Amino acid sequence: MSVLILHALYIIAITAEAMTAALAAGRRSMDWVGVCLLGAVTALGGGSMRDVLLGHHPLVWVAHPEYLLLTAAAALATIAIARFMQRLKRLFLFLDAIGLVAFTVIGCNVAMEMGLPVLVVIVAGMITGCLGGVLRDILCNEIPLLFRSELYASVAVVTGALFVAGHKLGLPHDAVLFASMAVGLAMRLLALRYSWHMPKFVYNEEWH
Amino acid sequence: MSVLILHALYIIAITAEAMTAALAAGRRSMDWVGVCLLGAVTALGGGSMRDVLLGHHPLVWVAHPEYLLLTAAAALATIAIARFMQRLKRLFLFLDAIGLVAFTVIGCNVAMEMGLPVLVVIVAGMITGCLGGVLRDILCNEIPLLFRSELYASVAVVTGALFVAGHKLGLPHDAVLFASMAVGLAMRLLALRYSWHMPKFVYNEEWH
Amino acid sequence: MSVLILHALYIIAITAEAMTAALAAGRRSMDWVGVCLLGAVTALGGGSMRDVLLGHHPLVWVAHPEYLLLTAAAALATIAIARFMQRLKRLFLFLDAIGLVAFTVIGCNVAMEMGLPVLVVIVAGMITGCLGGVLRDILCNEIPLLFRSELYASVAVVTGALFVAGHKLGLPHDAVLFASMAVGLAMRLLALRYSWHMPKFVYNEEWH
Repeated sequence: MSVLILHALYIIAITAEAMTAALAAGRRSMDWVGVCLLGAVTALGGGSMRDVLLGHHPLVWVAHPEYLLLTAAAALATIAIARFMQRLKRLFLFLDAIGLVAFTVIGCNVAMEMGLPVLVVIVAGMITGCLGGVLRDILCNEIPLLFRSELYASVAVVTGALFVAGHKLGLPHDAVLFASMAVGLAMRLLALRYSWHMPKFVYNEEWH
Repeated sequence: MSVLILHALYIIAITAEAMTAALAAGRRSMDWVGVCLLGAVTALGGGSMRDVLLGHHPLVWVAHPEYLLLTAAAALATIAIARFMQRLKRLFLFLDAIGLVAFTVIGCNVAMEMGLPVLVVIVAGMITGCLGGVLRDILCNEIPLLFRSELYASVAVVTGALFVAGHKLGLPHDAVLFASMAVGLAMRLLALRYSWHMPKFVYNEEWH
Repeated sequence: MSVLILHALYIIAITAEAMTAALAAGRRSMDWVGVCLLGAVTALGGGSMRDVLLGHHPLVWVAHPEYLLLTAAAALATIAIARFMQRLKRLFLFLDAIGLVAFTVIGCNVAMEMGLPVLVVIVAGMITGCLGGVLRDILCNEIPLLFRSELYASVAVVTGALFVAGHKLGLPHDAVLFASMAVGLAMRLLALRYSWHMPKFVYNEEWH
């Protein structure tokens, strides 16, 4: 049951990620192919990066190439409905938050099933949750938003840590899964609502 | 026979890619080491990315380190002959088009021999054909040209799709190989000649 | 014995790399999470890239997650002591040079133990020594310094080539290790002291 729900959340999340990435592509006047590529890379890049770093083959989109079609199609469809999406901004921020915590627990799960150390499990969750957006920003030639935004990576770390801790305590898988996602989701939505930010480090001396 | 021709096209193409990447390095005043590195990464990066994503080891340049020397030397030689290359611009655009379709069918072939699904085979071809240039643009701190240029990725997709379709139809390997490359090459050259572009998606609303 | 010294140099070097990366993060006003991430990626990214390209799993930080904590903590501590680091600039440039040659011989060693060709061994050393900084510059949205700085990649190539040559000549491992590191270190320090640079390639014609 929980597997089905998590899978549904995953499908919703990669679709939403691809659609917001398409808007980022549009801000840089990319062509339709660029829109599709940026959508697919953003939606599937975090999981791919995790699998490459952990040596976990085949990658998700190699085993399920239909996700490539889904994300590319979602990005392409965004071109047609972009004018309406502005009004749906809150919905998409909510779906993005769902994606962040769903990707994170999925990534933690992959690393946990590989028998990796606790810290690596948490990092695998963070990579899965956050690196799609980092790749999007690099391809858009921007400093990754992750490094400056509302508790994004922190939410992944907290979600992953709760997920791991629950398992170490021997709590039931489903309870751990949804509790860690719920806490992470609440944290992200509160951060968005009240503009919580991590403190910034500002340093102005040049070395070179 | 077709293996030999394809191999010769591959050698010509990585040399040409390294040389045009050297010019991009020169536009950013990189030093000689940077020129060599950018040349090698651009020429060999697409295939490396494919192999890393598919878990297909060893990578081409690990099995054939002489390609590292060839591409670095070609990039270095470009420094000496850069002044003449402007006049050869058409030749290099032609060689780049050859490289695009040759890399694509080689990439499709690798994925097909691994028994991967059709869609992954086509994507493997596109990655092989296009990602060297994306890496070059990222290292030059630019938005990848791929996302905005004349049918570049589209040519790879069409070439790869024809290659896969021909094989599925049971047509002879050599015929499929050269027919798909010929169609892709014609499409790219026509796109360059008549400045065909994919439509752009322009979107100006900020979300954040 | 030499293993212990090399390990100590590695620990010192990843700490120093994380700290200078933290200053780069501060120059772009990243938040504390960004500082930690940029520190860990810069310190551990070169070795990770080598292992991913060579298919050498598990990666260093997967086998030793304590290095993630060490580098993230070093980066975070840098926020507190940044004002004093300016005076320690020479020390950090020295530690960075130590890191460059230590990472390089470690990388060469990994590839040599995998039985890879000589040229790949040298390239593996260069990737280990230099790519952390390239990742840092990409994430900071800059053209990698590597492509324009004082003999950085060249030092890695010379260090790696001496290391490989010494082994091929059958000289004792420890002597080869420290001699190649000493030559590389001297070369880097002289390059810094006298501002030695590779010649630049400047090319101003546009092609597109």
